[in-house]
Amino acid sequence: MAFLKVVPLEKALEVVLSFDISPGVEEVELENALGRIVAEDIFSPLDVPPFDRATVDGYAVRAEDTFMASEASPVELRIVGEIHAGETPKIELHKGETAYISTGAMLPNGADAVIQFEDVERFDDRIRIYKPAYPGLGVMKKGADIEKGRLLVKKGTRLTFKETALLSAVGISRIKVFRRIRVGIISTGNEVILPGSELKPGQIYDINGRALADAVRELGGEGIFIGIAKDDRDSLKDLIRKAIMLSDIIVLSGGASGGMRDLTASVIEELGEIKIHGIAIQPGKPTIIGLVEGKPIFGLPGYPTSCLTNFTLLVAPLILKAYGREGRIKKVRARLKHKVFSVKGRRQFLPVKLQGDVAIPILKGSGAVTSFVDADGFIEIPENVESLEEGEEVEVTLFSF
Amino acid sequence: MAFLKVVPLEKALEVVLSFDISPGVEEVELENALGRIVAEDIFSPLDVPPFDRATVDGYAVRAEDTFMASEASPVELRIVGEIHAGETPKIELHKGETAYISTGAMLPNGADAVIQFEDVERFDDRIRIYKPAYPGLGVMKKGADIEKGRLLVKKGTRLTFKETALLSAVGISRIKVFRRIRVGIISTGNEVILPGSELKPGQIYDINGRALADAVRELGGEGIFIGIAKDDRDSLKDLIRKAIMLSDIIVLSGGASGGMRDLTASVIEELGEIKIHGIAIQPGKPTIIGLVEGKPIFGLPGYPTSCLTNFTLLVAPLILKAYGREGRIKKVRARLKHKVFSVKGRRQFLPVKLQGDVAIPILKGSGAVTSFVDADGFIEIPENVESLEEGEEVEVTLFSF
Repeated sequence: MAFLKVVPLEKALEVVLSFDISPGVEEVELENALGRIVAEDIFSPLDVPPFDRATVDGYAVRAEDTFMASEASPVELRIVGEIHAGETPKIELHKGETAYISTGAMLPNGADAVIQFEDVERFDDRIRIYKPAYPGLGVMKKGADIEKGRLLVKKGTRLTFKETALLSAVGISRIKVFRRIRVGIISTGNEVILPGSELKPGQIYDINGRALADAVRELGGEGIFIGIAKDDRDSLKDLIRKAIMLSDIIVLSGGASGGMRDLTASVIEELGEIKIHGIAIQPGKPTIIGLVEGKPIFGLPGYPTSCLTNFTLLVAPLILKAYGREGRIKKVRARLKHKVFSVKGRRQFLPVKLQGDVAIPILKGSGAVTSFVDADGFIEIPENVESLEEGEEVEVTLFSF
Repeated sequence: MAFLKVVPLEKALEVVLSFDISPGVEEVELENALGRIVAEDIFSPLDVPPFDRATVDGYAVRAEDTFMASEASPVELRIVGEIHAGETPKIELHKGETAYISTGAMLPNGADAVIQFEDVERFDDRIRIYKPAYPGLGVMKKGADIEKGRLLVKKGTRLTFKETALLSAVGISRIKVFRRIRVGIISTGNEVILPGSELKPGQIYDINGRALADAVRELGGEGIFIGIAKDDRDSLKDLIRKAIMLSDIIVLSGGASGGMRDLTASVIEELGEIKIHGIAIQPGKPTIIGLVEGKPIFGLPGYPTSCLTNFTLLVAPLILKAYGREGRIKKVRARLKHKVFSVKGRRQFLPVKLQGDVAIPILKGSGAVTSFVDADGFIEIPENVESLEEGEEVEVTLFSF
């Protein structure tokens, strides 16, 4: 067994990112696309506006007919029709002609400008114009807003209402999105029970199961809670087998006891292959990464803050890569509230709470639920650093996806 | 008709916030609660941990038995049993006794400390201890993490995986959340058609319908797209009646033409009551706010950026208030990329794009779809201000919910 041949984080990540997770693609209606991740570059199938469009209520003209207009010598044009928004113009403007046109309507052939109605005088079937109109006045030209063929939404984009609205504007009603990556979540430990069950003395409620399943959902995946494995071989094997049937990736979080950790490693080795067992980081030293029936399986620490830190460092990058969203882990810069110490030779990830741009280290211990809830993310204290100073600028990797 | 009796934004907001929208409450399983908005303060029903809990693998002891221990004169204790995680201890420690205990297990009666196994020597049924243990060593006390009765999640909180995990940790499996507020969305205009339909000359695809429906969803509501009203009385009345049956709030966005605006006002007045018609802001001057069968109805501008600005100023606050999330419109501070001008006496809201902490004014015109997509939010230029300077600090209200 590759037991605790500790490797650097970079090596572990290299192994993780070599796993081939293809979520597959599905087509969804635009109205159900919010929050989904686009599986291909989307280009505009048309010009917006799709025609030369009046931007004011007024009179469509041939600009050259008006070039000589002045206060002293107005130009008169004959009204040959009306064009309303949504209509296909049935008329064409010839020299000396004009047509009433409403905002949003399509310019008739021959016209290249729209003079707003406040700027002309109307007499029955004629208008009088007192100053020249230039070509393009009162008009949004075909394609001026969005040109046909323009890249609208890049592959890997997570759709907000901005993008769904943009796709609507170019008439796209169905789009290809990545199928949600299914992540099977298993909690472990004899003492751990599900919320909703009655707590017997000595038992505690599960936290990592819900945390991981919902973190996966926030990442755009489907978090499937498989169950809680007891501290025995058969229980763990059963749940891993079930997870393999239902998921693309399996994530276990360890029970508190050291025995559970060994059991997890040995069961993964029996069912598949351990690729990494031990990473030179704290927390996360005993983390396991393996493959069972071609599916990546992760054994993460049991303490909630440690579990989430390792999820963010190792599992989230795999999910993001599969979605074409490499490197989209959220990070912010902040200043450290007070000095913190580490141990030389230990690469440490320390949970912090953010208050504006100040990062407050959480020193309560990663076993506490309250540490987990307070933590907005973590900072790294590199191997060769023994302390970070008060006020020092740090990069905070966020627990927010 | 209360036509264009222009009122200040504050007056309009006062009217909006006086509307009584009670979304109602429903109970959901914790596993379906992510993203929902909590309808009551939630307090912890128990202590976490629910018992004094070993934080290391080792030996449970009565600390006072070890006070005299030293390298020169170790203390010996007799092992009377083992306690594993998840078990109810069947033993009690008396003077001179100890028990093997694993991490996460419940301390037996009598014990008040756990000495990790590396720090003792074991001989058959006895251990030898070389230094004193203080009460609480190797123990997380009952309630040390979360005390019973502590406020966990406040009413109005939108649940992220942090909160769902916290609720799981205290054993809560069902929670009361606000029912999603249903917002019926109507687009208007003869030239506007739905994406997926074939575009005829003179027609354009709808944008506001999708934008508003999905913005409402991002706000935690249910955006229901009702349809596109043609520029005639019956079409508009039919859709408003349908919207009233299906929704708690109705939002119309105007077609490009002025005639549509008048029609909307007259139909709302026929079906109900206009409360506000005209607000002293740009864009949004002709905005209509009314009540039809007790349900708030908004007539917003047709240009997408203007529509979204007015939605953010007027509709979003009503939805947030109903959820107990008053004032949770997202705002950030930024510096203006370059000088912008306004007209004295006009209170203007200008769309901006954010690049880091720099706000770049978007001057392309609010009719452009690309303006809408580029805009991250808007800044206000007050009535008595004619320009904002390059580098000036501005507050950006975000188009992000």
